[in-house]
Amino acid sequence: MDSSFENPAVYLSGPGQASIKESPLPNITDSHSVILKIAYVGVCGSDVHFWKHGGIINKVSEANPLIMGHEASGVVHSIGSAVTTLKVGDRVAIEPGRPCRRCKPCKAGRYNLCPSMKFAADPPDSHGTLRKFYEIPEDFCYVLPPDMGLDEGVLVEPTAVAVHACRLAEVKVGIDVVIFGAGTVGLLCAAVAKAMGARKVVSVDVNESRLEFARGFASTDTFLPGSGDTAGTIATQLNTAYFTKGADLVLEATGVESCIGAGIQVLKRGGTYVQVGLGKQRIQFPIVSLSEKEINMKGCFRYNAGDYDLALHLLGGGKVRVKDLITSVKVFEDVTEAWETTARGEGIKTLIRVGGV
Amino acid sequence: MDSSFENPAVYLSGPGQASIKESPLPNITDSHSVILKIAYVGVCGSDVHFWKHGGIINKVSEANPLIMGHEASGVVHSIGSAVTTLKVGDRVAIEPGRPCRRCKPCKAGRYNLCPSMKFAADPPDSHGTLRKFYEIPEDFCYVLPPDMGLDEGVLVEPTAVAVHACRLAEVKVGIDVVIFGAGTVGLLCAAVAKAMGARKVVSVDVNESRLEFARGFASTDTFLPGSGDTAGTIATQLNTAYFTKGADLVLEATGVESCIGAGIQVLKRGGTYVQVGLGKQRIQFPIVSLSEKEINMKGCFRYNAGDYDLALHLLGGGKVRVKDLITSVKVFEDVTEAWETTARGEGIKTLIRVGGV
Amino acid sequence: MDSSFENPAVYLSGPGQASIKESPLPNITDSHSVILKIAYVGVCGSDVHFWKHGGIINKVSEANPLIMGHEASGVVHSIGSAVTTLKVGDRVAIEPGRPCRRCKPCKAGRYNLCPSMKFAADPPDSHGTLRKFYEIPEDFCYVLPPDMGLDEGVLVEPTAVAVHACRLAEVKVGIDVVIFGAGTVGLLCAAVAKAMGARKVVSVDVNESRLEFARGFASTDTFLPGSGDTAGTIATQLNTAYFTKGADLVLEATGVESCIGAGIQVLKRGGTYVQVGLGKQRIQFPIVSLSEKEINMKGCFRYNAGDYDLALHLLGGGKVRVKDLITSVKVFEDVTEAWETTARGEGIKTLIRVGGV
Amino acid sequence: MDSSFENPAVYLSGPGQASIKESPLPNITDSHSVILKIAYVGVCGSDVHFWKHGGIINKVSEANPLIMGHEASGVVHSIGSAVTTLKVGDRVAIEPGRPCRRCKPCKAGRYNLCPSMKFAADPPDSHGTLRKFYEIPEDFCYVLPPDMGLDEGVLVEPTAVAVHACRLAEVKVGIDVVIFGAGTVGLLCAAVAKAMGARKVVSVDVNESRLEFARGFASTDTFLPGSGDTAGTIATQLNTAYFTKGADLVLEATGVESCIGAGIQVLKRGGTYVQVGLGKQRIQFPIVSLSEKEINMKGCFRYNAGDYDLALHLLGGGKVRVKDLITSVKVFEDVTEAWETTARGEGIKTLIRVGGV
Repeated sequence: MDSSFENPAVYLSGPGQASIKESPLPNITDSHSVILKIAYVGVCGSDVHFWKHGGIINKVSEANPLIMGHEASGVVHSIGSAVTTLKVGDRVAIEPGRPCRRCKPCKAGRYNLCPSMKFAADPPDSHGTLRKFYEIPEDFCYVLPPDMGLDEGVLVEPTAVAVHACRLAEVKVGIDVVIFGAGTVGLLCAAVAKAMGARKVVSVDVNESRLEFARGFASTDTFLPGSGDTAGTIATQLNTAYFTKGADLVLEATGVESCIGAGIQVLKRGGTYVQVGLGKQRIQFPIVSLSEKEINMKGCFRYNAGDYDLALHLLGGGKVRVKDLITSVKVFEDVTEAWETTARGEGIKTLIRVGGV
Repeated sequence: MDSSFENPAVYLSGPGQASIKESPLPNITDSHSVILKIAYVGVCGSDVHFWKHGGIINKVSEANPLIMGHEASGVVHSIGSAVTTLKVGDRVAIEPGRPCRRCKPCKAGRYNLCPSMKFAADPPDSHGTLRKFYEIPEDFCYVLPPDMGLDEGVLVEPTAVAVHACRLAEVKVGIDVVIFGAGTVGLLCAAVAKAMGARKVVSVDVNESRLEFARGFASTDTFLPGSGDTAGTIATQLNTAYFTKGADLVLEATGVESCIGAGIQVLKRGGTYVQVGLGKQRIQFPIVSLSEKEINMKGCFRYNAGDYDLALHLLGGGKVRVKDLITSVKVFEDVTEAWETTARGEGIKTLIRVGGV
Repeated sequence: MDSSFENPAVYLSGPGQASIKESPLPNITDSHSVILKIAYVGVCGSDVHFWKHGGIINKVSEANPLIMGHEASGVVHSIGSAVTTLKVGDRVAIEPGRPCRRCKPCKAGRYNLCPSMKFAADPPDSHGTLRKFYEIPEDFCYVLPPDMGLDEGVLVEPTAVAVHACRLAEVKVGIDVVIFGAGTVGLLCAAVAKAMGARKVVSVDVNESRLEFARGFASTDTFLPGSGDTAGTIATQLNTAYFTKGADLVLEATGVESCIGAGIQVLKRGGTYVQVGLGKQRIQFPIVSLSEKEINMKGCFRYNAGDYDLALHLLGGGKVRVKDLITSVKVFEDVTEAWETTARGEGIKTLIRVGGV
Repeated sequence: MDSSFENPAVYLSGPGQASIKESPLPNITDSHSVILKIAYVGVCGSDVHFWKHGGIINKVSEANPLIMGHEASGVVHSIGSAVTTLKVGDRVAIEPGRPCRRCKPCKAGRYNLCPSMKFAADPPDSHGTLRKFYEIPEDFCYVLPPDMGLDEGVLVEPTAVAVHACRLAEVKVGIDVVIFGAGTVGLLCAAVAKAMGARKVVSVDVNESRLEFARGFASTDTFLPGSGDTAGTIATQLNTAYFTKGADLVLEATGVESCIGAGIQVLKRGGTYVQVGLGKQRIQFPIVSLSEKEINMKGCFRYNAGDYDLALHLLGGGKVRVKDLITSVKVFEDVTEAWETTARGEGIKTLIRVGGV
């Protein structure tokens, strides 16, 4: 890492425009906060979208460049006066959102829906974790088990996404699940559902090499749709191959229209569907099927109280193993190459080594 | 009623082809069953669809004509040897589905999802209630309160539809609700949600006269979309007029694409949506909005254990008043005119007087 | 109020030892806090217990005197720099607990279980509301409707206790409820259960004048146990008089052994029981009956997110009327007489007028 | 088995009075029923209570002797005309209760609470399974996996008891559980909770040899209370040894007062308690602790829809292994010795081989 900066950070100022620059050294602004030295930052699909388009809804600009990064691990560098749960040197996974703690959703236990949420790397001014030093409240840091690497620690974030989806889905022992998508989140949904006791875990993806990985990871079965397959034919083939009365649960981690439709159609009466992936704003949807089978369909947004704890429990105890998901690690200076690697669909998860170890 | 038949029944044998013919006199085939003399049968939208198209998915035919009718009231004519809850002369509302009682959904309390359900007027061979005598298990008859007419008794069925929707929605005191559609089911959804304690109950319909009725019935507010309004503009106008952070609950009783989209968009974060109405099989749907607001969306199919009981409680105690919904009563011989009245959208609910009083 | 003090407060320093003394003038210690001028403070049973015994588990002392009071209303005197929901002059009800907002129960939506809770008037050092000026976070103030007096505003607190109990109990339209105890909380439980749609609301108390009040307030029926009645005989008489298969719900607001036992025994199979009142630490309990009827029994502690909002909705809309519960108002200097009035069981609710109106 | 009878059965006619006598050969009385040849019947604590006392609430008599037995497996001997899920020769586990299927609890999915339930071996006239031939509805038979013996098939019943308890408890991945009692049901509760993902599973029993078995079976830890230990000291020792903030869940399978009290006290705030075991009708109970920690306490009675299916899933997949629980098998003629073995507390589960294999 370039030693000429005190707190170097990766700023994005427009599509394809990123640079490492000095950023303000953080102070402890709240007695319950700590300063972390960031160790690793992961690349997720939304990072690539930012890199290509400069944002999703809100956009970065020359006038308002944004520090990128939200999947991260780090080491505690200093602590506020009221901190009781962390000490200097602790290795932690980072939960990258800061809810207001005062609004009705926050107090009712759904802080992921806080309208004042400050989430890492959210334009215009909520900067991310791709920098050397980062301030964070102690209760959004999660101490890693001794035998878990800081690289694996980055994967707690996407595991928490999967945990949130599986908790919303109320996965129970013995149920049969179909998971659309075998990228990082889809694979982790499979692993978490399996850890929660699912019987059949059938992963669906258009990429056979991902399905091969899925079979070795957590899925009991996989399905590769043909190029001309519609929602209806996908559902029919899945039911013929794996279910007699339909699946109990669908976790949809692609956001693709044909998968969404197939998901509704593959479910048994009274089944549950969770929309984990984001894609096009609007899609064709089989609404009558939802009604006639009295399906319970749930939107799914980030994570919430208890999700990181459970993710760490599953990772720490070996019920979910994420080491193999890390297929590439880049150094801080090669951040744009890390984004391009992910953009090309190479491997599963690429990390950026920031270095604060 | 034509006295030349022992058990006259209205048979449909194709689109637009109906006739009153002799039907088999029912016997008590189970010691827990009773024979009813049917008093009134209501006309619902699905009856009209059958009358125009000969069925929905399964169709009637010359070879397999079907006795129509599923909303009904009647008087107990005779009882099986093991019947303990009814006596001859009891005036009852009829729950028109006969689940198998043995499958997993039945035993788990969701008999509306029974795959072996025999529902009244379901082709090819599950005949309906539009006849003089009708056999039914005692536990699917509900004794009417002394001051409720047999004509009102027909309205227990659509009230149970609304109760089922509101129970799925878990309506709680103080919540704000938008209801799309102000036909019989939409109006009853408004009334039941109000009886369960909803604060604002905003009905949306394209027919101003229905909205006028709604205001006098149960809705606290109404909204008439303009002809060019999209889902987005409907939602914006509703939020501007009635809500600061969006509605808590949407009950969608039209099945129309723009209403479904508006329903998702008018909801606050964490809100609930229940699809009560059936329309086109597939519609454009704002899936990203569902995810980002973490909406809970539920299909809704008929009714289930407890729904008729609660409907009768609400009707009996005056919390929901259905008398005004009955805008027309036809005699048995004029059944096709009853269907045509409903097809023309005249009034709210048309009944057919069968006469077994 | 004695003008010789800037911030006069009622301190308790031992059993029967109370005095009005100067207390520190509060500063705004958090940008989201406000300073209130206290208007009224209510007297509850726990205040009387403190007055008689110097505390419940933790005790006050000469060395650690405690400012009393936790049911209160007030007027906003000044606001912190980040306050957006209140302005000077707003009339508010006070939620008297300050959770940490960072622990797992707080973030999971159960801040009433926060182990670091600072509740008003909790020894040794969490001082109460019986003083002129009081600092409080803005989100624990609830603006009163224009037509609600500051005296009624004090009753929002016990109403929130009843709301919390009824939400835990999942009161639904049409259920039958038995409520043991017709003091302030028992009466409000009856009113809230009724407002949530309960059908029968049967209040049980050993004081006939309270039952008379209950009949005029919200209860549909009342029952006065005889002096020799056991749990079993109370349950039998209740079932004979009011229920065929038992009650759906019991709200136990006395903590008395015979009531607790009667509550379990009066329930139907599958019924729900909520323990609202506190009494002796240990009582004889019919555990086999709980198992065989598969009863769901819930402890109930204070209130939580949404309870104050719903209490205000019920009070503001007239669904619960609390004006008549206020049977006595004392001035600040007569605080010990207010406690004695309550100790003697006179009337329902006694208020202390602090004067910050 | 004595060949001089066509359908020999074990009748109990009073305390200590049992004999094998001819019983009526069953006919298929319902087209959905089958006749089984009983293979094995298990002995449970309630059988011993009947043997010693002639019944629990209702008693057997010379005039009304009762065929004993309710844990059982068998082979399909003949089938009714409408049976579709079984064929002659199928090996099945037996669910020994016959609900009415028509009452409100049955239709609402809680048939274990059916007031007309006919449970095997329930005086005066609901005879049990300890005979050669037994009639049963097809949907209360569960086909055993090919590699599961008919002896293990008997254990599906107590496993379903444990499944019912764990489903009521809503066991989730990562929670910490204390189980009081290490007899058959307590051991199976431990195994099912573990299979559902529990982290710590601490079994408590006064019998060290049972705890040793528990450690080899499913429990992660065990605790042997000292002879003078009270509820309070048991809870304190458990918390010191195993928990920092208390357990998430207690499954109480003894019905003993000190265990019930310890269970409430060992729970963390907001924890869940399920009463699985039956003992004395009334016990001393720490009611204030239940309230202050806002504990959810649930009665638990037999099993319900889905419990047998899940029990078989867990047994069939090896997630719960019951073979080692079978510590003794007696022949039909030695039935009283089987009861005595259980009465002496020898081993875990004793079976009676009826022989219909």
